[in-house]
Amino acid sequence: MTTQTQTQAQANTDFYSVLKDRRSVRHYDPNFKIPQEEIQEILELATKAPSSSNTQSWRFLVVTDQELKKQLLPIANNQQQVVDSSAVIVILGDLEMYKKSEHINQLAVDAGYMAAEFAKQFTENSVKLYSSLPKERLHEVAVFDSGLVAMQIMLIAKAKGYDTVPMGGYDREKLKQFFNIPAHLAPTIILPIGKAAVEGRPTSRLPISEITSWNKI
Amino acid sequence: MTTQTQTQAQANTDFYSVLKDRRSVRHYDPNFKIPQEEIQEILELATKAPSSSNTQSWRFLVVTDQELKKQLLPIANNQQQVVDSSAVIVILGDLEMYKKSEHINQLAVDAGYMAAEFAKQFTENSVKLYSSLPKERLHEVAVFDSGLVAMQIMLIAKAKGYDTVPMGGYDREKLKQFFNIPAHLAPTIILPIGKAAVEGRPTSRLPISEITSWNKI
Repeated sequence: MTTQTQTQAQANTDFYSVLKDRRSVRHYDPNFKIPQEEIQEILELATKAPSSSNTQSWRFLVVTDQELKKQLLPIANNQQQVVDSSAVIVILGDLEMYKKSEHINQLAVDAGYMAAEFAKQFTENSVKLYSSLPKERLHEVAVFDSGLVAMQIMLIAKAKGYDTVPMGGYDREKLKQFFNIPAHLAPTIILPIGKAAVEGRPTSRLPISEITSWNKI
Repeated sequence: MTTQTQTQAQANTDFYSVLKDRRSVRHYDPNFKIPQEEIQEILELATKAPSSSNTQSWRFLVVTDQELKKQLLPIANNQQQVVDSSAVIVILGDLEMYKKSEHINQLAVDAGYMAAEFAKQFTENSVKLYSSLPKERLHEVAVFDSGLVAMQIMLIAKAKGYDTVPMGGYDREKLKQFFNIPAHLAPTIILPIGKAAVEGRPTSRLPISEITSWNKI
């Protein structure tokens, strides 16, 4: 990240400020573009999130091309943020995530994090388990892990002085057709990221006592 | 949080340190108990996460009773962390989340965040939309939003000097039976939280270039 960007985007590294200040932002400065390297850096940091057996089922399709973003508009219920934000990150869940287990565990062996014998066994177990799961359960794993990485992206963006808005309201079938997304990649949310033009509105939360129970339902 | 707890638990409020230092921890100090008030504070902060139409479908069943935690052991594939951690947070997704929309939007009106007329319309639209969604789609919404709040819990815990381990590997049916969980609450993960006895192992991540594409799949 350049010093210029830091100044422009009001970076903040206090954990609690980042957490409390993050809000969904729906109005972006259309003239501000986050450099591709910085988006890459945000995604890289975000993938430090945990995942089911470290399968890392998240995949990212980042839309920065202005013409494509305009074409996304009708797919995304005409919500202008897909055009005005710097980029739209389409988060996809790979339902064949276990196919990368061997590769992931080999990376851990190469880094000295895992013994080769353990990696072999762990890969075998993961592939056996995940390849036998019903599609709905694989989908659930991928969707949940997408949520983990999405939250990290939103917080990291905020720490860098940017904003985001997680969007579930878009036409999944049209999006899949538009980008020719293969069947094993399930889109979860689309996530515009950019420089806010108008601050996000404050919103209310349910009192924690209403949604928490202790030791019994 | 008391000063004593801060000292014991090595609180850290640098955003990037929290993010980079968080790892899944599987060995906990069985003698250390996080005060209930602090767990409540962590959950309250975590629910600042966004959610689909702000429906906040997350529900928490926090297990602190030592006898119950022992009984969780066979349900959780005999993973000792459910016994040794301070608490096990069962994260549930409420598939009837829209039933709280009116209440949530009224809270926003009372706080001066939303005009009464807008709240009425927003509630009507949400109830109409969500109550007509197929159960699988409601499940997807609840699971994704569970992921968002789970990530925040894990990060806040780390900022306070605690650790966590998200567990998807447990017997869902047995858990539902054991706690008599009603059908509209879907368990996503169980999340032990406590004071680490042994640090988490480092793990590898896929290079970001392998999982990211730009403007096309």
